[in-house]
Amino acid sequence: MPVNYTPPPPESLRPVAGVELGTAAARVKKWDRDDVVLVALAPGSQAAGVFTRNRFCAAPVVVCREHLERAGQVRALLINAGNANAGTGEQGLADARRCCAATAEMLGCAADEVLVYSTGVIMEPLPADRIVQALPVARASLRVDGWGAASRAIMTTDTVPKAASVHVKLGSAMISVTGMAKGAGMISPNMATMLGFVATDAAVGRSLLHTLTREIAEQSFNRITIDGDTSTNDSFVIVATGGSGAPALERADDARLPLLRSALLEVAQALAQAIVRDGEGATKFIAITVDGGRDSAECDAVARAIANSPLVKTAFFASDPNLGRIVCAIGNGAAADLDPAGVSFWLDDTLVVDRGGRAAAYREEDGQRAMAKSDIGVRVSLGRGSARSTVWTCDFSHDYVSINADYRS
Amino acid sequence: MPVNYTPPPPESLRPVAGVELGTAAARVKKWDRDDVVLVALAPGSQAAGVFTRNRFCAAPVVVCREHLERAGQVRALLINAGNANAGTGEQGLADARRCCAATAEMLGCAADEVLVYSTGVIMEPLPADRIVQALPVARASLRVDGWGAASRAIMTTDTVPKAASVHVKLGSAMISVTGMAKGAGMISPNMATMLGFVATDAAVGRSLLHTLTREIAEQSFNRITIDGDTSTNDSFVIVATGGSGAPALERADDARLPLLRSALLEVAQALAQAIVRDGEGATKFIAITVDGGRDSAECDAVARAIANSPLVKTAFFASDPNLGRIVCAIGNGAAADLDPAGVSFWLDDTLVVDRGGRAAAYREEDGQRAMAKSDIGVRVSLGRGSARSTVWTCDFSHDYVSINADYRS
Repeated sequence: MPVNYTPPPPESLRPVAGVELGTAAARVKKWDRDDVVLVALAPGSQAAGVFTRNRFCAAPVVVCREHLERAGQVRALLINAGNANAGTGEQGLADARRCCAATAEMLGCAADEVLVYSTGVIMEPLPADRIVQALPVARASLRVDGWGAASRAIMTTDTVPKAASVHVKLGSAMISVTGMAKGAGMISPNMATMLGFVATDAAVGRSLLHTLTREIAEQSFNRITIDGDTSTNDSFVIVATGGSGAPALERADDARLPLLRSALLEVAQALAQAIVRDGEGATKFIAITVDGGRDSAECDAVARAIANSPLVKTAFFASDPNLGRIVCAIGNGAAADLDPAGVSFWLDDTLVVDRGGRAAAYREEDGQRAMAKSDIGVRVSLGRGSARSTVWTCDFSHDYVSINADYRS
Repeated sequence: MPVNYTPPPPESLRPVAGVELGTAAARVKKWDRDDVVLVALAPGSQAAGVFTRNRFCAAPVVVCREHLERAGQVRALLINAGNANAGTGEQGLADARRCCAATAEMLGCAADEVLVYSTGVIMEPLPADRIVQALPVARASLRVDGWGAASRAIMTTDTVPKAASVHVKLGSAMISVTGMAKGAGMISPNMATMLGFVATDAAVGRSLLHTLTREIAEQSFNRITIDGDTSTNDSFVIVATGGSGAPALERADDARLPLLRSALLEVAQALAQAIVRDGEGATKFIAITVDGGRDSAECDAVARAIANSPLVKTAFFASDPNLGRIVCAIGNGAAADLDPAGVSFWLDDTLVVDRGGRAAAYREEDGQRAMAKSDIGVRVSLGRGSARSTVWTCDFSHDYVSINADYRS
């Protein structure tokens, strides 16, 4: 059960002109469900992506990077759940390329106009035969309102599908932005998340779209962590089809850009937070903001030290205001020259530590009350600057251990 | 229950000439057990210590550092369990100093000849009154064979006491080295561990003892991690009393030094590994060696990425050869320029990944067999150099969550 998150009804997910989605059951694993998604994009669609920094990155990540570096347009995405095609060496690369080639042949485009994504078990050979065989079924089911079915087909240990949709008036044109994502464990994205897909029917030039994608990732998927493990497959892509007919955005000083950025960010943040709320075994959603830092990197390091500490996460699970563990995590994440005597922190609105020591007015009951909520805010002030950073995370429960001890069985 | 570790019988712990240990029940927490240890040292004893790098370091760590920086000898250690005196601000410092002053007054030495150590809950005021009141009882129980009782009195969530003892002939003199340690969670020492104490009746000059202590810590307590959280109180101290009557070691080229170093290291490694084997909720002991690196720092980073990954640790708990998680962790810990195609790894003697891909001969049954053992070896070769590093860790079980969700209740 996700923490305070209900997936939007499929009918609320706005079609994006130029995007059709179809699904099929390729039996990538021994399960009885759709596990392959084909996303067909209108000619002229631009895409930009950011990917994992894990050095053992998966074969589809290598192939996506290659394809995106080439100049041309993007005509399709092919996504499978159940197998990550990671740690699979040369055979994995060949399998990923074969999936792209088969998709390209079916759709009548070039192989490097296809992007490929995989998520699931690592170090098992990808059943590329079965995925290729399922392509015609996926193609036959292509539809503009396929976002709901697609967001379900990319799930692995997710308990609910994640999707979000907004629209915004850009000049005289109404623009749609719709996206989907998956991920529940091995989540600590670095430049991207497990799998996140956002499409808009705005037209955006290649260079501007690349800049936008990095900015949006930094403020959404790169702000979450579930277990501190950056996966081999993290990928986030924004597709701009131009299907709305609105004039293309090409320059950073386009007056419409802030509106489009804000719409993209709203969808990306909703998806990123949904991943945390559906984190493996999560019972709490915790927003950690660190401010008063010299630069955002030091704020980020402290926020992540808190967010990834197993001791802090189990205390949140237990609703135990064991605030010493947060103090300890702050001390681990902080720069060597940070003066603890300048550090304060709040649990929701309750001041707990006041400039390095326990706040005089702090009462255990107040901490207890804040910890018992399912949405909790932690704010740390480092007391020496004006930079800030926010990270979203979840707690660490018995179910996290159960889920990860039983994952492959 | 610790993993393949039985505490040595108290009678096997050799007295160290010049060291007497006494215990008392100060009711630091609401429990009915000894929780204060007094270690009295003969005049002329030298001590050297290494301490946590956590920026929120505890009051006793601050006081110990001050006292050790001054030139003089050390006459006593005072240790309490149940309260860490960390995150306690100015009052905490005053409490730690007061404990030193009271001990010094009782023993007739200077306050800065007393070192003070605390372990337990963070951010609760230290009950210094009760500790000071317990000092006479601790003094009355001082005895040279007090190591067993002392190692029990410093326990917190430890399930067994940890102590070790060796003797070695240095020239014509027989030297004893005996030590004790505690720690079961918040364990990822950085220059030191939770609390580790080793004493020898060798005489060692101040500067040489300092060097030795750093070397020994680096090869013992700094090689372990349970949950990646470096505590606020990590402290490791070596005391050299000179009580054996053997001529003092003063210079790094003393021919007896390798023997003494080896004896100290044996005791320190036994204590460090005992801490891991008694890690909170541990069911497996895992030795991770990374070799073939460009330098030891890159080997260490990969070893720690594996050792601290919750996904790897839960897979070990489940005896699940989910080797993709180790691959993922390697990719997270590795330097940006590491070529995955050069990386191999073994589970015990089984080659699992052969230069970047699944080994042709690898069979799941072999992985399963290795994972099912309670002592497991992981070896990773980075394939580009001759440096190496080893880290010892444990798995991550339901009991870890239970222990840490219930710790304060």
